[in-house]
Amino acid sequence: MSTKWVRYQQGERQGFGQLDNDSINCCSGDMYGVSQLTGESLALDKVTLLAPCHPTKIVAMWNNFHELAEAQNLTPPEFPFYFIKPQSCVSTQGAEIIHPNGYDGRLIYEGELGVVIGKTCKNISRENAADYVLGYTCINDVTAIHLLFKYDAFAQWTRAKSFDGFGVIGPCIAELDTPESLVIKTFVNGEERQNYPVSDMFFSPLDLVCLISGDMTLEAGDVIACGTSLGVKTMKPDTTVEVVIDGIGTLTNYYKPDGE
Amino acid sequence: MSTKWVRYQQGERQGFGQLDNDSINCCSGDMYGVSQLTGESLALDKVTLLAPCHPTKIVAMWNNFHELAEAQNLTPPEFPFYFIKPQSCVSTQGAEIIHPNGYDGRLIYEGELGVVIGKTCKNISRENAADYVLGYTCINDVTAIHLLFKYDAFAQWTRAKSFDGFGVIGPCIAELDTPESLVIKTFVNGEERQNYPVSDMFFSPLDLVCLISGDMTLEAGDVIACGTSLGVKTMKPDTTVEVVIDGIGTLTNYYKPDGE
Repeated sequence: MSTKWVRYQQGERQGFGQLDNDSINCCSGDMYGVSQLTGESLALDKVTLLAPCHPTKIVAMWNNFHELAEAQNLTPPEFPFYFIKPQSCVSTQGAEIIHPNGYDGRLIYEGELGVVIGKTCKNISRENAADYVLGYTCINDVTAIHLLFKYDAFAQWTRAKSFDGFGVIGPCIAELDTPESLVIKTFVNGEERQNYPVSDMFFSPLDLVCLISGDMTLEAGDVIACGTSLGVKTMKPDTTVEVVIDGIGTLTNYYKPDGE
Repeated sequence: MSTKWVRYQQGERQGFGQLDNDSINCCSGDMYGVSQLTGESLALDKVTLLAPCHPTKIVAMWNNFHELAEAQNLTPPEFPFYFIKPQSCVSTQGAEIIHPNGYDGRLIYEGELGVVIGKTCKNISRENAADYVLGYTCINDVTAIHLLFKYDAFAQWTRAKSFDGFGVIGPCIAELDTPESLVIKTFVNGEERQNYPVSDMFFSPLDLVCLISGDMTLEAGDVIACGTSLGVKTMKPDTTVEVVIDGIGTLTNYYKPDGE
C-alpha cells in the first residue's frame, strides 16, 4: 500500500503523519525529507485535516484533455496553458466554499488531479521528473465562472480562481508510481458528474513537472493542478462536492452561499 | 526622512536594516512588526542587497493608467484587472535578467510602483488601507511579450511574466505617507523611456490594497504591482534598465541574453 501523507491540527498542535485507514501514524522530521514514525497514532475523527501541503504556488492548467478540447473545439496546446492560484486560496478537506462578497455570478467545481512537488527543482528532464514528486492529491479548482469572460479584453483566469478558499486540496498526498492510470471522478450531492482518466491528458503529470520546471523553479509543497475535463457544472446552494481518485482518496467540500 | 527598509546578504549572513545613504543601519526583530537598531552599520558596497521582501505572491495590474488606456483604446476598468507572479520569479537590485531557455521572442521592461503589505489583511476598507502597508518599492515587471498573445484562445499573462527573475523588486521599501505624489521613471542605457505619475492611475495604491484584499488575503511581504503606463519597449542585448522613483530609489538590472 502506498504511503499517504496528511497534515493535521489537534487543538493547538499541528503535525504530519501517514494515513492508515481511520487513523494517522504521527511522524517527526521533514515530510519532504527525512522523517520518522513517532509511534503515536491519532484517530482521524479526533483531528482536523489541514491542506496536506503549503504551496508557494498552485500552477493550474487549462485545456489539458483531448476529450474536453474536442467537445469545446479547442486547438490542442503545443505547451501547457497555465495560470497561478496563490497560497492564500488554499483550502482543505471538509471546508466550506465561501461565495465571494460582491460577486453575484455562479461558482463551478472542477475536479482535478494535483501533483505535489517533493523538492526544489528547475529544468528537470522528463526522465528525472518523478524524483521531484512527493505524490498526488485531489483538487477542487473552484471558479467564479461569470468573471472569467466578463471583459473581452482581459480573461480573468487569475481573479476567477484566486478567491480565498478556491484552491481546495486534499485529503492526503499519495505516493504513487503510476499516476497515468488514475481516474478522476466528481460527485455532486452523490451523483457522478465527472469521470475521466489521466491517460487522456495532452501533458501527463510528469510531462507537466518537466515543462513547468523549465519556466520556473518549483518548491517542495508546490502543486501542479493538471486541469479538468468534461462534466463541470455550476454549484447550486447546499451542494456537496466530492472529488474521488481511487488510490488517493475523497476530497469533500460544501457550498452553502446562504451562509446557513 | 522616511524609513527605507532593505534586506541584505553578507557572506553566509542575511539580515535587514534601514538604508542611510551609503550604509545600512542593521536591525534585529521583525521588519513587519517590532524591530530595534542593533547599533551596527554596514557599508552598502560590502553587502549584496536581497529582494526587500519575500512575497507569497505579487498581484500585478493590467490597464491601470488613463494615459495608457487612451493611447491603446482600452476600456477603463470597473475593477482592477490582475494576474499573479509567483514568489519564484522574484529578483532584486543588480540582478541580471536571464532570457528563458527555448523562448525565441523578445523581453520587455515595465517600470512600476510596488506596494508592500505590512500585515495580514482581508476585506480592508479604503480608509484603513494605509495601516496595512509597510511601504513602497520599485518594480521591473519583465515580460516575454511574444508569448502573451501567441494563442488567441488563451492570453498567457501568467507564463509571460512568471519566468525566474521576471519579478524584479527593490532596492528598498520606503515608508511614505503620500504615494499618490510619486512619479515612476524608467531609463534604458541612461535614456528616459517612461515618466508617468501615480496620480494617473485608475485605482490608486490604497484603492488596490482595499479592492484586492476583498478578493484574497494579503500577507506581510506580499506585493501589489500597480501596473505600467506608456513607454514600454523591448530590451536589446546588453541593456541596463533603471526604474527610478524619487522618494524610494533606483532599481537597476541588466539584460545580456548572449550570456556574456
